[in-house]
Amino acid sequence: MSQVKLLSHLLGLDGVSKAQIELILDNAVHMKVIMARPFKKVPALRGTTVVNFFVEPSTRTLTSFALAEKHLSADTVSFSPSRSSLTKGESLLDTARNLEAMQPDILVIRHHATGAPHFLARKINCSVVNAGDGIHEHPTQALLDLYTIREKMGRLEGLNVVIAGDIAHSRVARSNIFGMVTCGIKVRLAGPATMIPAGIEEMGVEVYDRLEPAVEGADVVMMLRIQRERQGEALFPSAREYFRFFGLTPRVLRAAHEDAIVMHPGPMNRCVEIDPEVADGPRSVILDQVTNGIAVRMAVLHMVNQARLNALGVVTDPNELHEGADR
Amino acid sequence: MSQVKLLSHLLGLDGVSKAQIELILDNAVHMKVIMARPFKKVPALRGTTVVNFFVEPSTRTLTSFALAEKHLSADTVSFSPSRSSLTKGESLLDTARNLEAMQPDILVIRHHATGAPHFLARKINCSVVNAGDGIHEHPTQALLDLYTIREKMGRLEGLNVVIAGDIAHSRVARSNIFGMVTCGIKVRLAGPATMIPAGIEEMGVEVYDRLEPAVEGADVVMMLRIQRERQGEALFPSAREYFRFFGLTPRVLRAAHEDAIVMHPGPMNRCVEIDPEVADGPRSVILDQVTNGIAVRMAVLHMVNQARLNALGVVTDPNELHEGADR
Amino acid sequence: MSQVKLLSHLLGLDGVSKAQIELILDNAVHMKVIMARPFKKVPALRGTTVVNFFVEPSTRTLTSFALAEKHLSADTVSFSPSRSSLTKGESLLDTARNLEAMQPDILVIRHHATGAPHFLARKINCSVVNAGDGIHEHPTQALLDLYTIREKMGRLEGLNVVIAGDIAHSRVARSNIFGMVTCGIKVRLAGPATMIPAGIEEMGVEVYDRLEPAVEGADVVMMLRIQRERQGEALFPSAREYFRFFGLTPRVLRAAHEDAIVMHPGPMNRCVEIDPEVADGPRSVILDQVTNGIAVRMAVLHMVNQARLNALGVVTDPNELHEGADR
Repeated sequence: MSQVKLLSHLLGLDGVSKAQIELILDNAVHMKVIMARPFKKVPALRGTTVVNFFVEPSTRTLTSFALAEKHLSADTVSFSPSRSSLTKGESLLDTARNLEAMQPDILVIRHHATGAPHFLARKINCSVVNAGDGIHEHPTQALLDLYTIREKMGRLEGLNVVIAGDIAHSRVARSNIFGMVTCGIKVRLAGPATMIPAGIEEMGVEVYDRLEPAVEGADVVMMLRIQRERQGEALFPSAREYFRFFGLTPRVLRAAHEDAIVMHPGPMNRCVEIDPEVADGPRSVILDQVTNGIAVRMAVLHMVNQARLNALGVVTDPNELHEGADR
Repeated sequence: MSQVKLLSHLLGLDGVSKAQIELILDNAVHMKVIMARPFKKVPALRGTTVVNFFVEPSTRTLTSFALAEKHLSADTVSFSPSRSSLTKGESLLDTARNLEAMQPDILVIRHHATGAPHFLARKINCSVVNAGDGIHEHPTQALLDLYTIREKMGRLEGLNVVIAGDIAHSRVARSNIFGMVTCGIKVRLAGPATMIPAGIEEMGVEVYDRLEPAVEGADVVMMLRIQRERQGEALFPSAREYFRFFGLTPRVLRAAHEDAIVMHPGPMNRCVEIDPEVADGPRSVILDQVTNGIAVRMAVLHMVNQARLNALGVVTDPNELHEGADR
Repeated sequence: MSQVKLLSHLLGLDGVSKAQIELILDNAVHMKVIMARPFKKVPALRGTTVVNFFVEPSTRTLTSFALAEKHLSADTVSFSPSRSSLTKGESLLDTARNLEAMQPDILVIRHHATGAPHFLARKINCSVVNAGDGIHEHPTQALLDLYTIREKMGRLEGLNVVIAGDIAHSRVARSNIFGMVTCGIKVRLAGPATMIPAGIEEMGVEVYDRLEPAVEGADVVMMLRIQRERQGEALFPSAREYFRFFGLTPRVLRAAHEDAIVMHPGPMNRCVEIDPEVADGPRSVILDQVTNGIAVRMAVLHMVNQARLNALGVVTDPNELHEGADR
């Protein structure tokens, strides 16, 4: 039906077209309908083997993927080798070859090394989904953010979105910038100078060194988590200082559009990057993001599996998501 | 068919009626029949998502729940965040909201904080089953104990049951006291004065400061695990000293009714609270408790799911447990 | 159809007949066909409960078993108690009894204690599969090695196979020696004198104190992983020294038969026991071993389950593996 090329892998949003993003978001709408049923299970990935290979621990993202896989009836095996055991004499290439030899259909990978999923996708013969690689990309997070924005605002094109925090070390920010610019969103970045990469304007974004002017008239304000464990004290004097200049308070939020929504990838540092009154306030869509994350991951897994099956010559049923629940 | 109100949550046995307890025990009888089949699987929870959220590690209880869920064909995701990672900037309320946003149908929770399951049940829109909260309640353990007593003795009403050990710090004891008193059991508690909470008699129990007189004529002797890691040396001088006054030996057991059974929630400290000769003797039903634990948890999960589906207006088949195996 | 006695347990290859080994390898051929399908799932173990009880951590073997179980539609629960938590007051016998009380159909066990699976098989009423016990046996590894050799060389009888490395501490070597001698393979062992058990020749093998003469005319060269963490520096002066005398280099490999294959159970220590040029060269079948491991484990699980069901009087369909995929 659709003329959009299905992606065999989802490695990042860099290079993914607007039509491809919209296809995923449209399918996620169906997935969210499935999630609202008393029996939230469809046979779309029955007989498909998904390996969740999370080198960095991540309860939150791993649980979201695992639930998406269960809802689609996939067979899943998750493992979280510690970084130290991985490096014990085995290179990423050896790990990749061993994973391939186990013949999973889809590999969902989180890895501390930038480009690890891209490397694996080139080397091994299965679909690869990036669940976060170093400070590089986290495409399913950006897709769930786009889904949530579209769901709440009714469109993406022409919106003004602020992303605030440690842009330089945020794979969430990077993937969102790629996806948002592709979808016609005007992106404004705000953060201390130490947290903004030099030359970032070339990605088609505007940079602000204070939060309030960035928020002026914005439709969406997305606050990033301050990774206090990652940066030292050098990047900003104290949490209190950071909150004073870059924390999202009710006062700052008043500068935004009156229907503006507030987003955060979680987990939040209350009173560091966000005021609890805003986090729990009527404009916050932070928990919608969590729910939508499962729907978007279902759509991504379904897409890469359709591409895999089509490549194998298996005819798939384009209406399978619209059928009744599988009970 | 039944007029008994199904529980949407199982948070504790405090406040649960005799009829509700009997309904669970009666259903567990069917579940045990299913467990004895060559193919121990029924479709009762097919399409139902269960999240096992165990903040305190517990191989034993988690495995029991996981097997119960598999036998019922549920989709399950288990995670055991470390206590330290949980507290890293995220409150129990934030955790609860995130769990809710993932839209599980049933949440099985073990948590070190007293009342955590009750708090979650009020805040989030899914069925909550308490798998142990601090030193407060452990209702599925008490239900499996009641099931085992009823199975072995043919009744509950009027029996004399001794619970011996560190009553003050035992959620197993607390849940059992609630359930046993409700079911007409006469409960005797035995333990060093430091391990008996002041005023416990108000719960309708008798207190003994030595084991042997408590055991006199008893139908059931339930020994609790001495948590040497929890209390310091202050509560009792030594394991040897404890065994001398409160260990269940063949000699002490002779004081009980001639058909009396011996119980223990496991894992046992042999030669601390129980003599190996008793633990492995003909009156011990300790391993029956483990088997029955799976059957009782199947019954509990089935009940809260029926309540959930009924609330959604889904008609459920009351005979579904009596059908042939799902293969 | 077959007159071969099905094994109820797979504890080791010591005492397993040639016909039983061949039955497993023949079934693994069907399993590999299933693994090559777009939907790699058959209902052979549907309704069967498998507990993976791995006391020693092992991502590699556990993942291989878990995938085999999923492909067969088994219900699986995996747990990896730490060694320290296990010993906390609970003996292996208590653990065994508790596992039995949970009534799994099949128990896959990895344990640091030699003979632990044999002990459990005697004590508890379920099928036991040894996934590695101490330095004793690792039968599924040896079966996958035999499968790979037969697949590549077309036969087993009369082949010359070198096993090189720390024979004394290798359960992989021990299981392979049992299986290979049974199947008519001529086994040559090579390693430093400190790594060869005294009297090993009685098992029907030849011993070499250097690698090159052992490799002379060999059809298969199997290198073992040097466990640098297990032995101290006492066994060999340095990794460099070891590589010089026992590392498999292209030069040493030239002494083998021109069609010889190179094997390794993984993970490899490149430049310790094997030269990367050999590890990644055209004769290496190391990754085939990983793939075949899943097929062989599927065959083993299927066999012990058939034996279990036959003992229960359940009629099983001998052709079930030849049917279409279960989707």
